[in-house]
Amino acid sequence: MRLYTLIILLSGIQLCAFAQKHPIVFETSIGYNKVKSRLAENLMYKQSFFDLKSEVDQWLGKDIDVPVPKDAAGGYTHDKHKANYLLMFGSGQLYQLTGEKKYADLVKQMLFKYAQLNPTLKNHPQATSSSPGRLFWQALNDANWLVYAGMAFDLIHDYLTPEERNIIANGAFKPEVDYFTKGIPEWYDLIHNHAVWACAGVGIVGIATDNQDYIDMALYGSHKDHKAGFIAQLDGLFSPDGYYNEGPYYTRYAILPFYLFANSINNFNPELKIFTYRNNILEKALEGALEQTNLNGVFYSYNDALKDKTFVTNEVVVALDIASQIYGCKPAYLPVIKSQGRVILNQAGLSVSNALQKQKNILPFYPYKSAEYTDGPLGNKGGVTVLRSGKDSHLTSLVYKYSSHGMAHGHFDKLNINLYENGNEVLQDYGAARFINIEQKWGGRYLPETKSYTQQTIAHNTVTVDEISHYNGDESVSEKNHPIKLFSSYGKGNVQVVIAMDSTAYTDVKMQRTICMLTLPNIPKPVIVDIFRNLSDSSHQYDLPFNYLGTVISTNFKYKSNNDFLQTLGSKNGYQHLWKIAEANVSGKFNQFTYLNQNTFYTISSSTDDSATIYFTRIGANDPHFNLRNDPSYIIRTNGDRQTYVNVIEPHGNFNPVSEIATNAYSSITDISKIQDDENYTIASITLAEKKLIIFQSNNNFSTTQIHRIKMGKDVFEWTGPICVFYNNKIIK
Amino acid sequence: MRLYTLIILLSGIQLCAFAQKHPIVFETSIGYNKVKSRLAENLMYKQSFFDLKSEVDQWLGKDIDVPVPKDAAGGYTHDKHKANYLLMFGSGQLYQLTGEKKYADLVKQMLFKYAQLNPTLKNHPQATSSSPGRLFWQALNDANWLVYAGMAFDLIHDYLTPEERNIIANGAFKPEVDYFTKGIPEWYDLIHNHAVWACAGVGIVGIATDNQDYIDMALYGSHKDHKAGFIAQLDGLFSPDGYYNEGPYYTRYAILPFYLFANSINNFNPELKIFTYRNNILEKALEGALEQTNLNGVFYSYNDALKDKTFVTNEVVVALDIASQIYGCKPAYLPVIKSQGRVILNQAGLSVSNALQKQKNILPFYPYKSAEYTDGPLGNKGGVTVLRSGKDSHLTSLVYKYSSHGMAHGHFDKLNINLYENGNEVLQDYGAARFINIEQKWGGRYLPETKSYTQQTIAHNTVTVDEISHYNGDESVSEKNHPIKLFSSYGKGNVQVVIAMDSTAYTDVKMQRTICMLTLPNIPKPVIVDIFRNLSDSSHQYDLPFNYLGTVISTNFKYKSNNDFLQTLGSKNGYQHLWKIAEANVSGKFNQFTYLNQNTFYTISSSTDDSATIYFTRIGANDPHFNLRNDPSYIIRTNGDRQTYVNVIEPHGNFNPVSEIATNAYSSITDISKIQDDENYTIASITLAEKKLIIFQSNNNFSTTQIHRIKMGKDVFEWTGPICVFYNNKIIK
Repeated sequence: MRLYTLIILLSGIQLCAFAQKHPIVFETSIGYNKVKSRLAENLMYKQSFFDLKSEVDQWLGKDIDVPVPKDAAGGYTHDKHKANYLLMFGSGQLYQLTGEKKYADLVKQMLFKYAQLNPTLKNHPQATSSSPGRLFWQALNDANWLVYAGMAFDLIHDYLTPEERNIIANGAFKPEVDYFTKGIPEWYDLIHNHAVWACAGVGIVGIATDNQDYIDMALYGSHKDHKAGFIAQLDGLFSPDGYYNEGPYYTRYAILPFYLFANSINNFNPELKIFTYRNNILEKALEGALEQTNLNGVFYSYNDALKDKTFVTNEVVVALDIASQIYGCKPAYLPVIKSQGRVILNQAGLSVSNALQKQKNILPFYPYKSAEYTDGPLGNKGGVTVLRSGKDSHLTSLVYKYSSHGMAHGHFDKLNINLYENGNEVLQDYGAARFINIEQKWGGRYLPETKSYTQQTIAHNTVTVDEISHYNGDESVSEKNHPIKLFSSYGKGNVQVVIAMDSTAYTDVKMQRTICMLTLPNIPKPVIVDIFRNLSDSSHQYDLPFNYLGTVISTNFKYKSNNDFLQTLGSKNGYQHLWKIAEANVSGKFNQFTYLNQNTFYTISSSTDDSATIYFTRIGANDPHFNLRNDPSYIIRTNGDRQTYVNVIEPHGNFNPVSEIATNAYSSITDISKIQDDENYTIASITLAEKKLIIFQSNNNFSTTQIHRIKMGKDVFEWTGPICVFYNNKIIK
Repeated sequence: MRLYTLIILLSGIQLCAFAQKHPIVFETSIGYNKVKSRLAENLMYKQSFFDLKSEVDQWLGKDIDVPVPKDAAGGYTHDKHKANYLLMFGSGQLYQLTGEKKYADLVKQMLFKYAQLNPTLKNHPQATSSSPGRLFWQALNDANWLVYAGMAFDLIHDYLTPEERNIIANGAFKPEVDYFTKGIPEWYDLIHNHAVWACAGVGIVGIATDNQDYIDMALYGSHKDHKAGFIAQLDGLFSPDGYYNEGPYYTRYAILPFYLFANSINNFNPELKIFTYRNNILEKALEGALEQTNLNGVFYSYNDALKDKTFVTNEVVVALDIASQIYGCKPAYLPVIKSQGRVILNQAGLSVSNALQKQKNILPFYPYKSAEYTDGPLGNKGGVTVLRSGKDSHLTSLVYKYSSHGMAHGHFDKLNINLYENGNEVLQDYGAARFINIEQKWGGRYLPETKSYTQQTIAHNTVTVDEISHYNGDESVSEKNHPIKLFSSYGKGNVQVVIAMDSTAYTDVKMQRTICMLTLPNIPKPVIVDIFRNLSDSSHQYDLPFNYLGTVISTNFKYKSNNDFLQTLGSKNGYQHLWKIAEANVSGKFNQFTYLNQNTFYTISSSTDDSATIYFTRIGANDPHFNLRNDPSYIIRTNGDRQTYVNVIEPHGNFNPVSEIATNAYSSITDISKIQDDENYTIASITLAEKKLIIFQSNNNFSTTQIHRIKMGKDVFEWTGPICVFYNNKIIK
């Protein structure tokens, strides 16, 4: 109904005069007429308005500084230009919401200064990126500027005379648009989040300045050939499930230009039906990112993620408000909107805050459930499965990653797992090493330790062969390959399973990893069984780390501690950053390690084929600038051609430091033994709470209908499908 | 009025029959009659009742296990006996509150089992303490048992026949009382928190079983000579200000038997006026402990503290409810009661929960203010000053400790400081190394690293001379000595100062430390100036650590990082636990180190007399059982006979990781220079925000009325009192 109205309206506008159709980018004039009178309608909307007003008001009447670019991220000129574009956008909105000309004038004066500055700019003096910026050290930030300055211009469009519009369009915008589309078109035409920002900037400026050429380049690339541009990005950056190739932390970042530009396209040309494009790909993208957060809203930290980023960031506020308007404000969105505590100041924001105010029973958390995402534009490049158990604050989430590389921010982490429980990180992905916008820390950029450590395989909870990272740490090779999911079953019953395989990370090692999340009778928390098979014809060293977070409580083996001096675990591929704190030579039969994380106990019980060496390590070596956190790891090393690890990760018990009571502080597992492990089957027996837990797994037939029959002693076990779990003599389903 | 009523009542009771006066220990029968009918009066009280009921109900009808003592803390028999005494007390209360006999019966059956077991007990098999227990590994836990079992007995007194009472009094209680008062009287008669529990236990059992002999031994010691017992403990464990000799973490623990027993004495013999004894010493003790908490309610971590303990623990709930009834439910108490979220189930608890429900404007935090406490029964053994600035969540608290040792849980930490800001620990005291009640961690006891590291001087933010701890780490020597406060001024104006001195920790070094907390015009956060003078006639090595918590952001000096191997900083007195991460040889003139703690920047700017060596260390060496946290330190080392450090600790700016904005990330201090430093004056000049901040300090006259006059170049500076602060050519007051 709304769309239909808009179409009629726009047709009408196009027939009479261009001047009437602004603002249109962030909100239409009709939209502003609606919300203006309803500012006081509810608390969150009103508060968001006054927050913006008090931010902008402090700059009214002050000198406008548009400095000559000089500093890296975190420095004065960087922060000033960033503050300027946000101020322009804010002030433009206030002009529309209050009608007060002082707000429009602030935007005008500032854009005039940019109209003077921008034509004079060459590459930024601090440009170290392959895509240098002009106002900023990297082109990405210039694209941010273009998005916000374009929206601000649109908001004061009618306040400006045609001559003034010309001055700004040609002085402030054209140099940036030309630089992107003609100066660095190879960057502009990438299928990459930076280029999404650039296209959004060019497109928004196009709509704001009535420049169809810009709009076309934004939608279809600098050559308008449909091989690049916004539509190609919608096709190329998401899998059919909405999985964003760089992972959820970067979805959070990319989602903003996607939604801002889609919103303006939708206002300008609803016939493009941008929000239903590719079966609502933008809805799937946003929900896929929300689904991949920890209880506290932090995006899962795989790839180059920073762990401070939650879904209360501005990017998600904007996207979620717009999504609520377009796709409906679903109950799942409300706990997120509630914790965001603010809305955008257009019709979308108003409707969202009204929905929140009306709804009495808001879910305590986003309704997380087990989920699976394919990777790649066609959904055929591996993927990510999140297995979940429990609910609300007692949620266990295991992330199993068998996706493709994820561009420049990807890690060498094939078949990696991460574990979250009760809102805590229990087996971590380090994420990236970066102090964003803290100038003293390498200008706020990604620190060198991101490449030298956090992207390396040893930083992950997966196997490193011969101390060499997957694909020998070569991004270009990794980008061409990916693991394969063999089987998965999740989201229902007491057995959730994913089996994935990779034969590309190493030339002569095939890795197959099975992750089962089991809910067992009378066992209060889920038990995770992890069968990691490393198969080769030649002998190798296999290192499987568990990057646990917590305090060592106990082991069932003796180890030698390095008390008076420490050395590194290795010399390259991330190993040079690990101090070797303690080590143990163990038989491999059954080794247990218990740690305490945020008052929950976790035990990792492991069985390996042959004797193993276990290392306790801590990050910190070769880190002269204190750029890395000093986090621990528990690494199990074996040698051989074929080496299978059977691990059980078992959350158990609780320690209450206030009442000083520890319950279930001991693991309930007393033995693991491998009954069979060959090309046909892997069968592992685990003694848990004095009962037998047996995992049967087919290694060569992953059909869900295949019937398997195994004779073990006097007993015959029969089941259907690639995997079966027996517990206490019963099949668990 | 209430007291008067009770006196009349008790006189009446004593004239007729003993049986009428029970219960009387935790609450009187009159009190129970009052609260019984008002259970539903408010939510918190009702909830506390149902919480207790559901805890107790799950044990009704189940077998009662009173096992033969066997295990250490955290083990089954330990936890069972602890659970038993809590269950008896809970069930006894429910009998009074509901009148249901099943609750009384549970207590009776359990006490009968103890009446069988206790006479058979010798020292506990796991007893490693100098005061072994019988039911538990240490006598302290037996005393806990006696307190709760005694209260439980009193609650079901009238349900029992005289014969049953005899069986329990002689079987369950007498062996414990005899063991304490005759078996280990040297322990029972200590002026020490363990003995407070023991006296409370004996006294409560005395009141419960109408045994005046026990009551007298509880109040006046095993010899009833007034040299020991509860009254002597009230005299000897607190300073006149209510400072508890072991520090606030242990006040929290000791406060429970103090209040429980005082409450029962007050019910039994109000004429003793126990709650007004020593000018309301119990009121002062409780408030002194509350005042010494961080914003999150965690007790300051000096001495053997564990950092998980907050004022929501059961001990404080009990004490605060009783205190509210006795001394009035002050507005300051309400935020604490609110965060406790529960009350005790007697008249005190009911009145407190009613007060909370009635009060609309509850303070957001306990109203922390600058405070000073003398130490020692006569208040003449040094003390502790807490300087504070800011309010609510933006509170800066600096703890300056110049107290006496603090018995077995004291540290060698003369003139130590700790800094808290915005609820975060910024310069820490490690506290103790212990995982209380986690059996795998040395039976839950204090770990050996408490002695080998956390009690040592180097673990504190004060000077270690020649790598030897204060008093050479000898507790008995430390107990006999203490620093001296020379001057303090706090709680008003923009300059808060404490000057203290110690000449006892080392035989030939005198240490004098001045701490100023300054609020300066146009500087948003307080600035802390720290002048540490080390005076000796012979040459020494002085190490001043800043045990910062956070991430290294930058230094203004170059350092050499130990990249490939680590060694310890030293071999003994705690140094053996420190890895030497990096070091720098600096001129000493002006060295700066900035770190980030919970998104606030802190810079430590330092000037030393001569060249210095700076070490970045991290805890972890010689810790084979992973008992210590791997926290960092920044240690400034100088050599010489007289060495004065001028340090400025400067909180500044903020990093918002969600908006990615860092503000004021740089220190505003650009120079420190010492103008004079001799027996007469120390004068330090600090350039801050491009203005001169000059500290004038008299070193030999601490009179507040003395006029000082100093000529510096053409300028003459004149001031009154031991210290004066000039900023931007004006005296700051």
